[in-house]
Amino acid sequence: MGTTTEEMSPEERLRGLARGVLPPDAAASETARRRHLRLTKPPGSLGGLEELGIRLAGMAGACPPPVPGRPAVLVAAGDHGVLGRGVSPWPQEVTAEMVRNFCRGGAAVNALAATVGARVLVLDVGVAAGTEPHPLLRKARVRPGTADLSRGAAMDRREAARAALAGAEAAEELVREGTDLLVTGDMGIGNTTPAACLVAAFTGRPAAEVTGRGTGIDDATLALKVRVVEEALALHGPNPEDPLGTLAAVGGLEHAALAGAILYCAARRVPVVLDGISSCAAALAAAALSPPSSGYMVAGHLSAEPGAAVALKALGLKPLLDLGMRLGEGTGGLLAVPLVRAAARVLSEMATFEEAGVSEG
Amino acid sequence: MGTTTEEMSPEERLRGLARGVLPPDAAASETARRRHLRLTKPPGSLGGLEELGIRLAGMAGACPPPVPGRPAVLVAAGDHGVLGRGVSPWPQEVTAEMVRNFCRGGAAVNALAATVGARVLVLDVGVAAGTEPHPLLRKARVRPGTADLSRGAAMDRREAARAALAGAEAAEELVREGTDLLVTGDMGIGNTTPAACLVAAFTGRPAAEVTGRGTGIDDATLALKVRVVEEALALHGPNPEDPLGTLAAVGGLEHAALAGAILYCAARRVPVVLDGISSCAAALAAAALSPPSSGYMVAGHLSAEPGAAVALKALGLKPLLDLGMRLGEGTGGLLAVPLVRAAARVLSEMATFEEAGVSEG
Repeated sequence: MGTTTEEMSPEERLRGLARGVLPPDAAASETARRRHLRLTKPPGSLGGLEELGIRLAGMAGACPPPVPGRPAVLVAAGDHGVLGRGVSPWPQEVTAEMVRNFCRGGAAVNALAATVGARVLVLDVGVAAGTEPHPLLRKARVRPGTADLSRGAAMDRREAARAALAGAEAAEELVREGTDLLVTGDMGIGNTTPAACLVAAFTGRPAAEVTGRGTGIDDATLALKVRVVEEALALHGPNPEDPLGTLAAVGGLEHAALAGAILYCAARRVPVVLDGISSCAAALAAAALSPPSSGYMVAGHLSAEPGAAVALKALGLKPLLDLGMRLGEGTGGLLAVPLVRAAARVLSEMATFEEAGVSEG
Repeated sequence: MGTTTEEMSPEERLRGLARGVLPPDAAASETARRRHLRLTKPPGSLGGLEELGIRLAGMAGACPPPVPGRPAVLVAAGDHGVLGRGVSPWPQEVTAEMVRNFCRGGAAVNALAATVGARVLVLDVGVAAGTEPHPLLRKARVRPGTADLSRGAAMDRREAARAALAGAEAAEELVREGTDLLVTGDMGIGNTTPAACLVAAFTGRPAAEVTGRGTGIDDATLALKVRVVEEALALHGPNPEDPLGTLAAVGGLEHAALAGAILYCAARRVPVVLDGISSCAAALAAAALSPPSSGYMVAGHLSAEPGAAVALKALGLKPLLDLGMRLGEGTGGLLAVPLVRAAARVLSEMATFEEAGVSEG
């Protein structure tokens, strides 16, 4: 008998998960591309919706790809020691308060999830103040928030791996219960600072280019935040070829969790719609752990946070929406769910020229 | 006793409809703007979704605005004498064939309407080949397609007014039966030529700037199409201050119908989501007939057709989506329906900081 999953270290289990991701099916994508030429519309006239449908076919390994009927948003929540540096004006207790707000249905993510018919699952992977039990909440608190990444490692490798596995387990629960499209969401006061560090680390771009105003900080706070990101990068010199080490050094628990959730879905060929900067940072980590995993990612929107554009470019993804949103929680990703459904539906429901008896140009 | 509606000319009835449009309610918009500052999110973090919600409150005259639960797409269909000039490689019979495809549910508009839960209503306002009766089809055939607008008027003023009233009547039927959000759609082989003429006439921009490839014509056909638009503008010298005369000279029956449908909805304070270039051209005509009507328009997407950006700028509207679509039928407008719902839902369902017990930054 070989080593069982239970006997493996968290890092070994995470590597196993990453190895399970296979590239999308190029033949199914090619079938979709050809089918688009036969449907009753001028070729290419549905623009990005056609490209998305072609990608969805590759993810599913089938043309037409299934129309997602049971989307879910996974909101990973954690706190951040770097908040002590003054990178955000919001107090740390807001993370726990917002988790309660998610559970009670009063947040933006709830209103948007209801709009698109998505299930909401919240994952406490490290909320400092703790969280009360609730049917919408899963607890996998690796530690009560990270340490200050500008003065030392945010967490150790084992903690980063455990957070990633907690995200994968939450995604596993969702997929087991029917989720066929996952939206990534995040909550964590201060988390755009580790997100900026991760984007800088994985793309090689400078701190000033990938660091933004988050919730809307002023010029002085932004200047401080850029310096903090620079200090963290100088302190750790994170190696993008060691994604787990990079997550541990300069990431957040929720970024690690979302990376794990993405990998799980990619391994199961379930499309993942990315939300804003924290999701994009997690996606970079996932793609570093498993390059083919980016084939299962859909960029839901372009966050106003500058690092998002940098990350999406590195991932080779074009955002579906650009509404100047910068809230996180999965809100921008949820708004893209109907576009994913539409892209799949067009391939399965539209008639061909032959079927409809429509003449061609 | 005054003149009854039945005794009025089509043009007088259209003017009466236009006079019934009142500006959106600025006070309701201001209430929405203030409410957005109290909801549990950083101010402004929902970007364009907040702006849209503020506009929807003004349209409804209430904050929160109602969440549209019964959207519909009105697909106005007509043919175009200018097709004889060779502006499109598609044969005229495709207009009637696609109307049949809409009725049978095999077109892109059907797949996208199903995705967002929208009703489809097709209006034959001048399909040359005629159309078979169908529950999804209304017939108000003003004439069997327009005349060649490059050699004479596309139709006369009375016909343009009758087409506009047919659109208004179709919208009236929808609203009476519960439609609370209208998406404008079009079908008409060759109709991007009159659309370009209308955009040029109402914005004063040159033919070369507003004329595009429509279904995807080659360089030589595009050059011909630009010349045809230039000839039409030179022949008629359409006066943008006479919107009905402009529609009659260089428009299409479906453009007139959509202009009427937009005016009806604006008068009833029902939001209208515009689709692509033909919808944008109709919206310019509606706004010329009734300037406050633009306050009820939502730009669903930015069509790849260059005149759309010119028209939306003139209307003061920012498109919600930009996916490189250029199909028409209402497809791009339908994809924006969930965004409209989300914008309204955020204002009605999100908790304030006080209600949720969330601390502020």
